[in-house]
Amino acid sequence: MTGFPRTGSGDRAFHDGLIVIDALQASNWDRELLEELREGGATAVHVTLAFWEDARAALGNIGRWHRLFEDHGDLVMPARTADDIEEAKRAGKTGIIFGFQNASPIEDDLALVQIFHELGVRIMQLTYNNQSLIGAGCYETADAGVSRFGREAIREMNRVGMAIDMSHSAELTTLQAIEISERPIAITHANPLSFHKGLRNKSDRVLGALADSGGMLGFSTYPFHIGGSGISLDAFCGMIADTAEFMGVDRIGLGTDMCRKLSSGYLDWMRSGRWSKRIDSGEAGTAGGGWPDWPAWFRSPADLPNITRGLLDKGFAEGDVAKIMGGNWLGFFRDGFAPR
Amino acid sequence: MTGFPRTGSGDRAFHDGLIVIDALQASNWDRELLEELREGGATAVHVTLAFWEDARAALGNIGRWHRLFEDHGDLVMPARTADDIEEAKRAGKTGIIFGFQNASPIEDDLALVQIFHELGVRIMQLTYNNQSLIGAGCYETADAGVSRFGREAIREMNRVGMAIDMSHSAELTTLQAIEISERPIAITHANPLSFHKGLRNKSDRVLGALADSGGMLGFSTYPFHIGGSGISLDAFCGMIADTAEFMGVDRIGLGTDMCRKLSSGYLDWMRSGRWSKRIDSGEAGTAGGGWPDWPAWFRSPADLPNITRGLLDKGFAEGDVAKIMGGNWLGFFRDGFAPR
Repeated sequence: MTGFPRTGSGDRAFHDGLIVIDALQASNWDRELLEELREGGATAVHVTLAFWEDARAALGNIGRWHRLFEDHGDLVMPARTADDIEEAKRAGKTGIIFGFQNASPIEDDLALVQIFHELGVRIMQLTYNNQSLIGAGCYETADAGVSRFGREAIREMNRVGMAIDMSHSAELTTLQAIEISERPIAITHANPLSFHKGLRNKSDRVLGALADSGGMLGFSTYPFHIGGSGISLDAFCGMIADTAEFMGVDRIGLGTDMCRKLSSGYLDWMRSGRWSKRIDSGEAGTAGGGWPDWPAWFRSPADLPNITRGLLDKGFAEGDVAKIMGGNWLGFFRDGFAPR
Repeated sequence: MTGFPRTGSGDRAFHDGLIVIDALQASNWDRELLEELREGGATAVHVTLAFWEDARAALGNIGRWHRLFEDHGDLVMPARTADDIEEAKRAGKTGIIFGFQNASPIEDDLALVQIFHELGVRIMQLTYNNQSLIGAGCYETADAGVSRFGREAIREMNRVGMAIDMSHSAELTTLQAIEISERPIAITHANPLSFHKGLRNKSDRVLGALADSGGMLGFSTYPFHIGGSGISLDAFCGMIADTAEFMGVDRIGLGTDMCRKLSSGYLDWMRSGRWSKRIDSGEAGTAGGGWPDWPAWFRSPADLPNITRGLLDKGFAEGDVAKIMGGNWLGFFRDGFAPR
């Protein structure tokens, strides 16, 4: 937490009493990073098991998490239900929610939705940045909306209890997913376009439809979603206050998009998968190459208490801070993860 | 049931009161075949989801069963525990136990043991007829026993609660598996060599070690394991009586190896996978080509009551018939399917 004052002990005690849920982190997990989750008081984290992976590769990533649970069961546990998250809180552990940032693991096989649900996958983006078999990603120039297979996949995700995440999807595809889905959907990690014009951020039209349908937005701290690492905690919390005004304080939470210990080679995988020989820097634009710097007040999950303090300083009531820091996600997951 | 008299109503009522478990059927399932299971009063059946399939293909076969459960939930339900089997009995359905006849679905990835266990796979053969990454199949000329990976896989199967099945494995590999495994193992579908000299049948040495370790043998009705379809029900039940004498009446059950509606093309897949361009008729020998005829008293699972009657006629006490027809498998599965 270089150059940023520590959260005072009073605020920290308040933070430690909360259910704290981060609806997206995509780190290269090891014991040190799992300890950061505990240090930050994270009750549950939605982790990423696929960007471009097919079914078999996704199984491999699930297998790696099984090893982490076996080897570091004192720090983390699987979270497949809202009850599991509450159990993690009681046990002083961090509940890990499995998710995919793309529909690539289900390939063209509808049956894989239930199969991955049985393996604990509870959140899936219908697209990453590109066109998927289901819809358009936010970097595509054209957006034809949700495909035939996409409609089937949404129905099946609704049936088994796998939450739909449109964080990286294009606008029409997102609006259609909200409409087609019989359950509320999520944008786990993005910010309002009105706050920062970034390719990944969302229009008022999308956020309004999301809120109206009972969906959730998770605020991202990823530098390209907030206008750079120089942004102040006060400005970040100001964005949250404005969005609470627009969407309602029950429809928002955190999805920091924190990426720790990922190599630049892995960044290339995230950006270009195996579908391109060129490096596509995407939202990084000419900044290009490596990982961006994180804001001074959120350099790792250990800094989660800073956001609690920032929200209190911004004037949010304690009850609303509790909702934003995790209570809202808990309710969304309780409804969203159970089979119909 | 051409040419075979129907089981009398008294015996049928006794049969219908039993927990009836068939520890191996490998049919090409459809509604008609699921109705045969109900007609035969099958409480649970161990079905085959892989012969040579890799992980991805095995997922596809699991997906096909999910469709069968959705479409024919009035007839069948998943059976992942002994409690599920008892629930199936109460509900008047047949519980379906997922199994692999080869270790091919776990490829070289230890993590896939837990992953397939989470997907409901409860029984896995360490080999089919060939050398696998784990050990030697019964058609190999040499048998080096359990491999390095095999020892790890056995330990992992013991941990998660996936029963080890050595039905198609070679002798040394089988004896070592019995010794290495900390849980009793199964030979779900084979007969004693002393009854019929077939490549797939088992020596007294194997059956003695199996019984001593608390394992289970399931008797096969597959023609090549009983000396042809002409064998009488009385002779089949005589084999069971002799084996009960040798192994103990608590260590035996049924594993009919019934194959229904499988094409000759599928028989080629079972025999030669994609590892050979030649047709290897295996135990069929020069009989070669197609599917053999089944005994007149067991042409489909609807004939399961005939075996109950045959055992009663052979002089087994009703309590022992109850054990052989399913009670013993129920106990084995209760111990074997639960994680450690």
